[in-house]
Parts: sequence; C-alpha cells; structure tokens
Amino acid sequence: MPEATLYPLANYTFGVKEAQPEEDPSVHARLKRLQNDFEEHGMRRSVEAVLVVHEHNHPHVLMLQIANAFFKLPGHYIDPGMTEEEGLKVILNERLGPEDGVGDMEWEIGECLSTWWRPSFEQYMYPYVPAHITKPTERKRLFVVHLPPHKVLTVPRNMKLLAVPLFELYDNAARYGPQLSAIPHLLSRYDFNYEK
Amino acid sequence: MPEATLYPLANYTFGVKEAQPEEDPSVHARLKRLQNDFEEHGMRRSVEAVLVVHEHNHPHVLMLQIANAFFKLPGHYIDPGMTEEEGLKVILNERLGPEDGVGDMEWEIGECLSTWWRPSFEQYMYPYVPAHITKPTERKRLFVVHLPPHKVLTVPRNMKLLAVPLFELYDNAARYGPQLSAIPHLLSRYDFNYEK
Repeated sequence: MPEATLYPLANYTFGVKEAQPEEDPSVHARLKRLQNDFEEHGMRRSVEAVLVVHEHNHPHVLMLQIANAFFKLPGHYIDPGMTEEEGLKVILNERLGPEDGVGDMEWEIGECLSTWWRPSFEQYMYPYVPAHITKPTERKRLFVVHLPPHKVLTVPRNMKLLAVPLFELYDNAARYGPQLSAIPHLLSRYDFNYEK
Repeated sequence: MPEATLYPLANYTFGVKEAQPEEDPSVHARLKRLQNDFEEHGMRRSVEAVLVVHEHNHPHVLMLQIANAFFKLPGHYIDPGMTEEEGLKVILNERLGPEDGVGDMEWEIGECLSTWWRPSFEQYMYPYVPAHITKPTERKRLFVVHLPPHKVLTVPRNMKLLAVPLFELYDNAARYGPQLSAIPHLLSRYDFNYEK
C-alpha cells in the first residue's frame, strides 16, 4: 500500500498575490485555442496537482475556487518538450508560489492518480480513450503532490484556496463534476499518516 | 506510469462447474453474520479482483453476474490470519479455478486499486473512513490481477462471467453501483499494452 503523510491545514500559511485572470474569455475561445494548438503541436498535455492536508484526521483536498463559483485543482497545460513533472512544478510555482514568481520549485511530485482524455474539440473528457479515437486532442494527468510539514501558499487575488473534505467530494458530481468527485476513490488506496 | 498488458477476451476459455449458492439468504442475514464475525474477530477484511482483458483495444473488466441480475467482482472476505494476497488467490481458485477445487494458485496479484470501508453494520461503504468512526466493521480492497496470455476460467453454474467495457461502467452508478462504476477512474493511471 503506498503511504502518504498528511499535516494539518493549520500548518500552512496562505498569502495573497496579484490576480491571474482566465486565459480565455469563454468556453468557445478555450476550445478554439485548443484546436489551434493541436494543429501546431499535436495532443495537448495538461497536469493537475492533488494537494492533501487533514483536519481532525480526515483528508481534505486543496482546491481553487474561481469567482465564488466553480472549483478546480491547481494545474494547466504544459509546454511541448517539458516533462509532466517539470511542467507541474512550474505551474505550482506560478499558481501558489511567492509573488515575485521566482519560487523554490520545491514541490514533491508523487504518483499519477488518474488520466483523462479529450477525444475531440468538445468539453467532455473520459478516464479512457473512447472507442475509435486514434488522436485524442488532450491528455490530462492528476498527480499527488506531497506537502512538507509547513509551507506558505500564495494565492492569486481572484481565487480562493479551499480545503474540501473527502466526504464532501464523494458522490457529489452534481457540485464538483466527474473529475473532482472521483478523487476520494483515487486516494483510497493510500495509507495516510496523520501528523501534527 | 504503471504498465499492464491486456490480452483479447478470445484468448480465455470458459468452463462451467457446480453452483456456488449465496452464503446468506438475505441482506439481513449477511449483516447479521458480519456482526457475529466482528464480535469474534474484529474488522472483516474482504478482497476483490479486477481482471482486465481487451476487445478491439478497449479494456473490459471480468464480472460475475448472479441470477441474471446484479454484478460483482470475484471476491470474498478472508480468514483472519491470512494476508490479503493469499486470501485473494484462494478465492480466485475457488471461484474461477478448475472443478476439482485444487487449482494452481497461479494468480498474479497486482497493486491495490482502492479501499472501501464499512463504518457500521449497514450496507453503505465509503472510499475513506468516515469522520468519528474509530472501529470500521469491514475493509474491502480491490486488487488488479494480471492475467496470463491464455487461461481456462471455470465459472459456477449459477453465475455468468461477463466482460464489461469501461465505457459501459463509466458514469453508470445507476446500474453498477458506486464501487464498480468507479473502476474506469481507478484504472486510468495505467498504461495498457494491448497484445494479441
């Protein structure tokens, strides 16, 4: 059984930094950019971080909430030529590192938890390559990122960073969507050590 | 990324053997037995096997269908004192091994895919220990079991062994329940090699 050590939410310090507005103004614009990038570079590779803390020995996942509405994991697509691990470190520094954008790149990237495939230039993704799809347009991977006992996380002003308990995510695709609501299943094979 | 090699469904030969009736005649009787066993031995440990094959390069999970109605993975609770791996081999031999019950015990038990916890003597299970539960009554673990290129699987007469595609399981808790419908998520981190 893989092990993971979790520290209390109260061990982490949260700062605020300049807003990081959405890259694309609409879903349509986002899918259009995907299509343009696909023509130039082929399949897009995206990565997302599952950062886990605990409160009273129950695991909580750190999630960004945008505009008091939808939730997402810290993540982004990565540059062609970067490994997923390098890319995720760059993204975590940008999203949760200090204001100056330099950061220490000291993120301990753990195992892949799941892979999602986008078969076309539509919104839907699946945790497998659908039948008859030979050229998926995007592959997204979720990685466990092991947090140290203490860390400062600096959050863009237009986002909130929330610790969402597994019992809130579980069986709650209505609120969190199919990807985030599956995180409790994906983490269930870990043996968690709850530290102080 | 962990790898797994899948062979076509047509590589496997299916036999029939004597029926293996349900141990308990009702849900009530099953939960009553759980309670009796718990008082004697403490938390029950159960194990289930996720056996994966492919058809046209799409993964399919082998599932038992009982009485033309509900689906389950090959599995059972194990004796106290047995490891989960030993226990699963014994169960697979009994459920899918040859009629004489001897079998070769040659089952390659892979990684744990998920863990489910039963907090009380009720039907519900969760992929985490619910808050304030200090003594769960049952822990069930799903393991990938790697199949060889060819094998004879002998199925009790009162069950059918079906190969259910991931696209059928996905997002289909209505038909398969919360545990089986999550298998596509759990398998998505594997890099599958589709062999002939």
